[in-house]
Amino acid sequence: MTQQRTETATNGDTAQDEGFVSDYLLYLLAAASDVASAQFHSQVRKAGLRVPEWRVLACLSDTDGAMITQLARQALAEQSRLTRIIAQMEKRGLLIRRSDPADGRRVRVYLTDAGRALAAELVPQARRHEAALMEMLKGNEGAQLKPALKSLLAALDGSADPQG
Amino acid sequence: MTQQRTETATNGDTAQDEGFVSDYLLYLLAAASDVASAQFHSQVRKAGLRVPEWRVLACLSDTDGAMITQLARQALAEQSRLTRIIAQMEKRGLLIRRSDPADGRRVRVYLTDAGRALAAELVPQARRHEAALMEMLKGNEGAQLKPALKSLLAALDGSADPQG
Repeated sequence: MTQQRTETATNGDTAQDEGFVSDYLLYLLAAASDVASAQFHSQVRKAGLRVPEWRVLACLSDTDGAMITQLARQALAEQSRLTRIIAQMEKRGLLIRRSDPADGRRVRVYLTDAGRALAAELVPQARRHEAALMEMLKGNEGAQLKPALKSLLAALDGSADPQG
Repeated sequence: MTQQRTETATNGDTAQDEGFVSDYLLYLLAAASDVASAQFHSQVRKAGLRVPEWRVLACLSDTDGAMITQLARQALAEQSRLTRIIAQMEKRGLLIRRSDPADGRRVRVYLTDAGRALAAELVPQARRHEAALMEMLKGNEGAQLKPALKSLLAALDGSADPQG
């Protein structure tokens, strides 16, 4: 506790009187993710998609023909849940599953024309929303947010529990 | 796109070949929150709590006698959902609801001895897990993570949609 407070105070903010939660990394991450995504996620729902569906669409617009394991990782969903999401999106005509020509046991997922059109509508909206957020962060510590998040992800990638 | 990529490249990382998702702020936030919290949240579940219950417990260990609105904000849950969670935790004897003596329409939530004991077990575990994460981030851009997240939260606090 004392150590945390000292560290925070050294950063020049006014956390000395804060309790545990407001300076707790996992709280800050979850709160920032929630607050920053709320507005755009309401646009996603207006477009008729749930958030994990939007994530799949965005991933496929980067990597058409991705495998379910890749999509699950990038869409932040359990593989079993993602398989159901993919099946529902296929029914709606947004994507199609095909066996890998080189290895028939592997399934790859491709956008249909309708899926591509929806991605072409939403990805630019996401970029505009992100640009507005980045604009708000310019010129202060927020400018370090992306590099800092990438650094955390890189540090945790493939690592076991940091406590061992 | 070009602007984003240029900006990222200026930061000295190798995002030039990345697609949209892997450099997208909302993805980085959600992924970092997911990955960083996975291990500790499994400890929470081992202690017999769901994640929002743990958050309520942690908030009350900071601010015993908090109101539901405060708890909902800090536990990142909708107020209606939080009210149900509080009711379940009260049944389990972890907390108790009482009317505010100064304003009977206000309900305040207090830890019971059992709730306080559970918090006294979990908060130090959370601090140790956080300390291990912070240790992994020391000496690189990750060290800026907390100030950067606080800066984002401050920028978004009470702000309308950044796109207007």
